[in-house]
Amino acid sequence: MNRTLTLNGHEAAVLAKAAFMAGLDHDEAEGLRACATVLLCDPHDVLFEEGDKAAYFYCVLSGYIRLYRHNGDGRQADIRICEPSDSFAECLIHADETYSTGAQAMDHAVLACFHIAKVRRLLDERPRIGKAIMRSLSLHLISTMECLASDRMQTAPQRVANYLLTHCVEDGAAASLRLPFPKNLLARKLGLAPEALSRAFSTLKTRGVTVRGRAIAISDINVLRQI
Amino acid sequence: MNRTLTLNGHEAAVLAKAAFMAGLDHDEAEGLRACATVLLCDPHDVLFEEGDKAAYFYCVLSGYIRLYRHNGDGRQADIRICEPSDSFAECLIHADETYSTGAQAMDHAVLACFHIAKVRRLLDERPRIGKAIMRSLSLHLISTMECLASDRMQTAPQRVANYLLTHCVEDGAAASLRLPFPKNLLARKLGLAPEALSRAFSTLKTRGVTVRGRAIAISDINVLRQI
Repeated sequence: MNRTLTLNGHEAAVLAKAAFMAGLDHDEAEGLRACATVLLCDPHDVLFEEGDKAAYFYCVLSGYIRLYRHNGDGRQADIRICEPSDSFAECLIHADETYSTGAQAMDHAVLACFHIAKVRRLLDERPRIGKAIMRSLSLHLISTMECLASDRMQTAPQRVANYLLTHCVEDGAAASLRLPFPKNLLARKLGLAPEALSRAFSTLKTRGVTVRGRAIAISDINVLRQI
Repeated sequence: MNRTLTLNGHEAAVLAKAAFMAGLDHDEAEGLRACATVLLCDPHDVLFEEGDKAAYFYCVLSGYIRLYRHNGDGRQADIRICEPSDSFAECLIHADETYSTGAQAMDHAVLACFHIAKVRRLLDERPRIGKAIMRSLSLHLISTMECLASDRMQTAPQRVANYLLTHCVEDGAAASLRLPFPKNLLARKLGLAPEALSRAFSTLKTRGVTVRGRAIAISDINVLRQI
């Protein structure tokens, strides 16, 4: 379901936090918003498949979007879980004609869809917007390289510990967090099978990590740092 | 060792093939070249470490450069092997102050080093160069996502088979190639330990892949496609 870009206050604030909006003045941001429509997704809706002709790049306003690739024999690999304020597929503005991954909504999701041909025309008039998009692409490249390095270097418990340590709220030696999404999305984000995530949490239990649904308690953050 | 940008014909041709030079007119290309100096590296020279303050982005003119990250306990993960015409660290033009990986020469290498502060000033005058750099960043992002997907989805023999299939010269059902670099660089490129690469080649031997030094012969390309 598609509607023109009328955002509620929360959605507008989420969009304003996107990396490709950073540093733009009022007119530039307005020009970019004028290239967008809003898309409402149901859980498991596929936005596009790898190889589809590219028409839009996207910013998540609420919900979660999974980017994935598939190989010949029907298996898929998750590449990125996009959260609110994350954008994806801007790499198609100047580099490609077709989407290089598939994209699927993981729950009810709201997206701002930026029409690539319109954004290209806008960039010719307002090159400073190009700088903001270049910054967004650069941050994606850096975080994808980090993800690759962590896959190549960290065990499953280390990947989970790293996620917990970078997302928790400390309270003295202890810390806690509430996962913003179900555990199966955490597994996909970390490149783990669901069973591998469960085994990692079992290992971490011996290091003082307690999991109750999405609520996670860490009894001693320094112990976790030594995984 | 550093010299100003006087390139021989071969080096100039390699630089002209870089993604960030694509589509530039004579004056734009000249403006960009004026931001560069040439660096000659000995094998194992470290260009920069992760976290160093960023001053340059680079284009490989000859040789190979390894990009890597390290974790707390001294281990390293290879992220990318840059070949001639490949550029790296352009993501620092608009996104960061410090290098997000380390970089090391793997043999005698010649690099064009683009002074980031000069390139930033040039981009303000000539926004079309920004488009070319955005394209280069986009291609890096797409290839890094492909690498992540292949790590998450393919076994070691599948990764090697995929490399062979995308780099070989076909001759009927048979095919052959000569690795442009030593096998230890292929292992790093594919995210494999050297022993894992050896085991993968042993597996592929049963599928008609013969390795003699850097020369690789494939007896039946269709058999290899089914790995």
